[in-house]
Amino acid sequence: MKKRVTIALAIAAATSLFADAPAAGDTLIKKAKAAGLAPIPSDKAALMKLIDNPKNPVTDAKVALGKKLYFDPRLSKSGIISCNTCHNLATGGVDGIPAAIGHKWTANPHHLNSPTVYNAVFMSRQFWDGRSPDLEDQAQGPMQAAPEMAITKEMAVERISSMPAYVKAFKEVYGDDKITFKRIADTIGAFERTLVTPSPFDKFLQGDENALNDAQKEGLKVFIDKGCVSCHTGVGLGGSMQPFPVAKPYKYANIGDFKGDKNGMVKVPTLRNITETAPYFHNGAVWSLSEAIKIMGETQLGVTLDDKEVNAIKTFLTSLTGEKPKIEYPQLPAVTEKTPRPDAN
Amino acid sequence: MKKRVTIALAIAAATSLFADAPAAGDTLIKKAKAAGLAPIPSDKAALMKLIDNPKNPVTDAKVALGKKLYFDPRLSKSGIISCNTCHNLATGGVDGIPAAIGHKWTANPHHLNSPTVYNAVFMSRQFWDGRSPDLEDQAQGPMQAAPEMAITKEMAVERISSMPAYVKAFKEVYGDDKITFKRIADTIGAFERTLVTPSPFDKFLQGDENALNDAQKEGLKVFIDKGCVSCHTGVGLGGSMQPFPVAKPYKYANIGDFKGDKNGMVKVPTLRNITETAPYFHNGAVWSLSEAIKIMGETQLGVTLDDKEVNAIKTFLTSLTGEKPKIEYPQLPAVTEKTPRPDAN
Repeated sequence: MKKRVTIALAIAAATSLFADAPAAGDTLIKKAKAAGLAPIPSDKAALMKLIDNPKNPVTDAKVALGKKLYFDPRLSKSGIISCNTCHNLATGGVDGIPAAIGHKWTANPHHLNSPTVYNAVFMSRQFWDGRSPDLEDQAQGPMQAAPEMAITKEMAVERISSMPAYVKAFKEVYGDDKITFKRIADTIGAFERTLVTPSPFDKFLQGDENALNDAQKEGLKVFIDKGCVSCHTGVGLGGSMQPFPVAKPYKYANIGDFKGDKNGMVKVPTLRNITETAPYFHNGAVWSLSEAIKIMGETQLGVTLDDKEVNAIKTFLTSLTGEKPKIEYPQLPAVTEKTPRPDAN
Repeated sequence: MKKRVTIALAIAAATSLFADAPAAGDTLIKKAKAAGLAPIPSDKAALMKLIDNPKNPVTDAKVALGKKLYFDPRLSKSGIISCNTCHNLATGGVDGIPAAIGHKWTANPHHLNSPTVYNAVFMSRQFWDGRSPDLEDQAQGPMQAAPEMAITKEMAVERISSMPAYVKAFKEVYGDDKITFKRIADTIGAFERTLVTPSPFDKFLQGDENALNDAQKEGLKVFIDKGCVSCHTGVGLGGSMQPFPVAKPYKYANIGDFKGDKNGMVKVPTLRNITETAPYFHNGAVWSLSEAIKIMGETQLGVTLDDKEVNAIKTFLTSLTGEKPKIEYPQLPAVTEKTPRPDAN
């Protein structure tokens, strides 16, 4: 018996060191794909098809205008809060605080954490309770929400319409100079659709077995085998609506009053760039990624992950930190004497 | 008599239409220079010499680091306010509101308006009361001010030091990894020194007589002849400390309690990009540039400018709207588990 084991180990060692190493990578790619994981397409046409919205086609001119509006604080009642304030493209597409703070320093009333705008296009629904079907629809919410940007539709339209350079830009995009709140949100949505961040993991799924190091590959295996992939799947590694909590109560459920949608379903956040988007969970209660992984195991999968497993998964997650699109900070049109004044109250 | 006048007019007309037009431009350039107006150098070496600080040399690495810190909201206690919040590079280097709003939505206690960071390097002093000698010193103020970013020196250093990419960047800039509050402010100051905006008026002063149209040239003459240039002079078209008010009380002196420095002296704001930096004056009381010009005539020069003169000056001022440096929106280092948490209170 001892001899047979020794031979088996020798074969395993040889396999691992030589012939089987690439094959193992290849096998892992197949396993990951079979588990539903998918890459951000490297082919531009395929990517455009994936991120496009037939009801709001992504065009260069629309994206350029949407970028300006995304960064424009005049879209808030106070004049000092933009989309980028809470979904900051410099810091993983988030604000890095537990619960969003907006107009008049008001915290989100449900203590909800700002989700990242990067790769949000891959989410099947928007907002933690999934109440919005797409980015264009989502963008209308925070602009109007009293504790966020607190502007009325009419005021937003009046502000933007008062600046000739914006009127010209809308005409270029839409063929007429009709500026509506929906169009404002649509152009912002179009810009947000372009905010995707290809990562080493995408290269790996596309066949580059060396894009992940051994520790990351090992972590990917644990990630799949433990069942994390059952929710964190697809191109977005998240984005569907799922029950929460499943196996055990969520440890920090007492922070805020969020209970999901009417069926208790919660949108699964993307794991892309997760190393950059602390604090974690819908109520931003957890700063440590290791703790977040451990909690997910218990709460959702009913498993206790040991430190080695937690570390392995965490190491895999580092491969999801992607390259951000280069964004030239915009020059925004100047206000005119017709522009409705900012109001901090 | 009539004949002589007719001849004189005919000569004047001929002069204006033909021979004298370029000469007039040339004369106006000389007149402007004689009045103390000076261009932003187009020669890079000359510009670098002008904007540099021997005590804090402007280097590419320092500017790159300073840019990151300028945009980094983790330099505020709350984690959501950066230098760029009040000195927004997308909107003329200002926040576009009468008085700055900062930590906990606190308005500036003296109702002071955020001055533009563009071309601030050309100001001889910083802050409205000139209490700071340079940008490096200035940058230390708002970070610590309770109604602005509200961070302590220690917390700023601890936050930045907790992010390895920042530690590496400081090492690259300074040769050692010592991160101090002074160094944080110094790198921000170095970045701010590069924020200069060459305009058509600079081309004009450099000899391109066609850089200004006739109406702008006419406005420049009025600007000089009425005496605006006595304070709004030099490369910055402002930046010295001057008495305020001089001839008549300032119409909106009741807003806020600012009275200048201990001698009643106030820093003259730059007129560069003035079309983009409403509202105007130290207390941001005036939204109309025309009204601002009229008030300055009365308050400082003791003259009543008629509408034609006001318009002429306003038209000249449009030639001061300059080209902004292209700035790639930075990707900031991610927080670590060691990073002191944001505190919104």
